[in-house]
Amino acid sequence: MPRLTLGIDLGGTGIKFGLVDPMGRLLRSSKISTPSKSDPLEVVNALVAQAKAVLATLPKRKVRGIGIGAAGDIDPKTGSVRLSPNLNWRNVPLKALISRRLHYPIVIDNDANAAAWAAYVVEAKRRVQNLLCVTVGTGVGGGLVLNGQLYRGSTGSAAEIGHITLYPDGAPCPCGNQGCLERYVGARAMAAEARRAIEAGESTVVSKMVHNDLSKITPLILEKAARQKDRLALHLWSQVGEHLGIGLASLINVINPEWIVIAGGLSRAGNLLLDPVRRTILKRSFHTPASAAKLVISKLDQELGIVGAGLLAH
Amino acid sequence: MPRLTLGIDLGGTGIKFGLVDPMGRLLRSSKISTPSKSDPLEVVNALVAQAKAVLATLPKRKVRGIGIGAAGDIDPKTGSVRLSPNLNWRNVPLKALISRRLHYPIVIDNDANAAAWAAYVVEAKRRVQNLLCVTVGTGVGGGLVLNGQLYRGSTGSAAEIGHITLYPDGAPCPCGNQGCLERYVGARAMAAEARRAIEAGESTVVSKMVHNDLSKITPLILEKAARQKDRLALHLWSQVGEHLGIGLASLINVINPEWIVIAGGLSRAGNLLLDPVRRTILKRSFHTPASAAKLVISKLDQELGIVGAGLLAH
Repeated sequence: MPRLTLGIDLGGTGIKFGLVDPMGRLLRSSKISTPSKSDPLEVVNALVAQAKAVLATLPKRKVRGIGIGAAGDIDPKTGSVRLSPNLNWRNVPLKALISRRLHYPIVIDNDANAAAWAAYVVEAKRRVQNLLCVTVGTGVGGGLVLNGQLYRGSTGSAAEIGHITLYPDGAPCPCGNQGCLERYVGARAMAAEARRAIEAGESTVVSKMVHNDLSKITPLILEKAARQKDRLALHLWSQVGEHLGIGLASLINVINPEWIVIAGGLSRAGNLLLDPVRRTILKRSFHTPASAAKLVISKLDQELGIVGAGLLAH
Repeated sequence: MPRLTLGIDLGGTGIKFGLVDPMGRLLRSSKISTPSKSDPLEVVNALVAQAKAVLATLPKRKVRGIGIGAAGDIDPKTGSVRLSPNLNWRNVPLKALISRRLHYPIVIDNDANAAAWAAYVVEAKRRVQNLLCVTVGTGVGGGLVLNGQLYRGSTGSAAEIGHITLYPDGAPCPCGNQGCLERYVGARAMAAEARRAIEAGESTVVSKMVHNDLSKITPLILEKAARQKDRLALHLWSQVGEHLGIGLASLINVINPEWIVIAGGLSRAGNLLLDPVRRTILKRSFHTPASAAKLVISKLDQELGIVGAGLLAH
């Protein structure tokens, strides 16, 4: 049996754990919920306890290390979290806090970087050189593999594609900018748009599907409605796909990737999302790089984060 | 004496030649105008004749090779020009045409890529890892050095930053997109904006400076007017800087470069351009990568293309 790593996906609501082999196969996984958001020590306690429980099932020599993908602005060199809005953390020396309690090599990176690395190793099987991984969940995350290596940029801050400007005069974003891509793409943006339309009197099966509780609108509901040819739902998917496509067209002209892997909650809608994305890319980016960019829906999806974190520790 | 290369910068209006040493020093340079645009053979004839004249001044063993930076969509693997709007070429096997007549190793790349490589080797002295070179002339070109290597993307099409979308519903661009950065930034965009304002009755010293011939408005004229505190000119520089800053803020969030080198005609305006660029970047991109990105005006500027082409052949 090859040696394994423990991959950990540390998010604002849950912490996922999994044993990962060198090929990126996930051998066992578990999940706990993230404790009281603003206290790093409480989170570290819970994380360490569960990690110990998982690692106790293996002889120590079988474990190569621990990889952690965390949401936020991570310094991969020191393993500290500079800022994480999801965890409500600022300057938390995560690696130092964990190293004291778990005596394995520890690697910490941004969760979207970890996801991109898993997409590269497991889904693209390292057969391409340049890959962009886009996670369209609540918001929009990104990771880049360039020339066959995870690209982190100068301070580990690269690939924050949810915060490229889509509309310079657009809606304010908590990041300080206006009109970020994330304001227009993602579960939050779609639900808000659906609520606005329904409150403005638009008739749609969505109202009935959520029993008129508009806080219950999710991408899954909107997908079901669109499959029933609901006009509002179809329009929302077309709009979100176009917005994502505008952002990806710019990125294709700058990054010129061979693969664009799309993961996250919205990716499960498949062609409802991909068709308008593809149309927009062909219209808005240069012919040569647009033809070279293959759009792929991630199969690992929810597991990308754990698998990627585990692979980074191999 | 170290061996030299011949660097050639092939543009739509002129072809520049220079002997380049391994450190990127330009030893001798010359320029011819580009002959009748649409005939590749005529251009190749003129290019080869001048290259032979330059090379005749050196013993053959002193010449390491020839590097050519050409405007357009270049395939660096085959050395062919897929499409060049500036030269009005489509699918021209430039390397093959030249190799028959000049028996040296020949390297062909996009002119903005060559410029970025010169900025990296000569201006940044290879001391940084990630650099974005932005040429703001008639339009906007870009080149990327990532992890210390020229980044070309999967088909050599990377770094076309003039064609990221700034305003999704904006002015049509000949590239097929709408609202490209280049529509709002560059000599063409500034002159058009100045003409519009003057024709709408705005009073400005610019009218007098060009003797009411509005086709004569250049960035240099607008710079002089701004130094005289002309309101329209100051507004135009602030606007062009803000537009460039919006694009760069997105790129900082995606690429996270250490250096951003700005070259081209507009860069000579110095702080008139840089101040609003800096302000916009700090407002619109994440704190960590924005603080890490150093903005530098290129000193080589007009010579970046020849020097970079020469360095690529070393």
